Amino acid sequence: MGLFSKDIKTLDDLFHHQLQDIYYAEQQIEKNLPMMIEKATSPELKAKFETHLKETTNHIARLDGVFKAYGQPAKGVDCEAIDGILKEAKHVAGNVADSEVLDAALLASAQAVEHYEITRYGTLIAWAKQLGLDTLVRPFEMTLEEEYKTDKGLSALAESKLNVKAA
Amino acid sequence: MGLFSKDIKTLDDLFHHQLQDIYYAEQQIEKNLPMMIEKATSPELKAKFETHLKETTNHIARLDGVFKAYGQPAKGVDCEAIDGILKEAKHVAGNVADSEVLDAALLASAQAVEHYEITRYGTLIAWAKQLGLDTLVRPFEMTLEEEYKTDKGLSALAESKLNVKAA
Repeated sequence: MGLFSKDIKTLDDLFHHQLQDIYYAEQQIEKNLPMMIEKATSPELKAKFETHLKETTNHIARLDGVFKAYGQPAKGVDCEAIDGILKEAKHVAGNVADSEVLDAALLASAQAVEHYEITRYGTLIAWAKQLGLDTLVRPFEMTLEEEYKTDKGLSALAESKLNVKAA
Repeated sequence: MGLFSKDIKTLDDLFHHQLQDIYYAEQQIEKNLPMMIEKATSPELKAKFETHLKETTNHIARLDGVFKAYGQPAKGVDCEAIDGILKEAKHVAGNVADSEVLDAALLASAQAVEHYEITRYGTLIAWAKQLGLDTLVRPFEMTLEEEYKTDKGLSALAESKLNVKAA
């Protein structure tokens, strides 16, 4: 995406850009989850992150399939949003002294990541429907359902256990 | 927050940091919404952004009240997450040639902002409850309800009108 050109002319171009954005984002999440697994102390939190790492690898494979069906090479574009969210996650994690407080912080950071994915997959679904790219809708929906499930599972773990321990 | 010190020792410290983070985020959103209002073409989208600008100003005032009740000065900390989300919003907006496609892009960016706020207020509510900061819960919930409402309103506008025009 050139800095001085207006490369996005149609909704299809915008969809393509968003698809490349989430592809990059998923790859960054895949790269960063092992650090979060390592830093987490709670076995339940570690397990949730490990499950999400497997899901993320699967989401990337699903996006590879989407790119193929869409007739474009699977390729990411720099996504300043996910970079910022992950940078903040690392920054906060590096500032926490206590391991139980760190778990609460890591969990909250993971939820910020989830919400970024939720909003982007929601948008991709809406645009794919509008563009008549019907075969792409289901893969996006499958991923979106998993992101929602992860977010809800993290909330439940926070409220039932991790926040109590951290307090 | 010092880069080489571990300043966050308790859940209360983490809560305080998150409160400063959302204070900064709301201020950045307030600063950036006028640009989004200016760039939007659809009168409905402009109106939604204008309403959200008023709400954002009110959210900041509400946070001022929260800081007061919490016994700390109202102060932000750099939030790399919202900076990244807004940087990406401006970057994408600057790359769109067509005004109706730009509306779809602006709307999607606004939803990414909403989701960031939704996740952070959700976390603040959970931590405030855990810390027994009961008087702070309701102001956070009021804001969270407005963020959800804004997000849903944007989805409805996208699906009923803006995406159709952009396609």
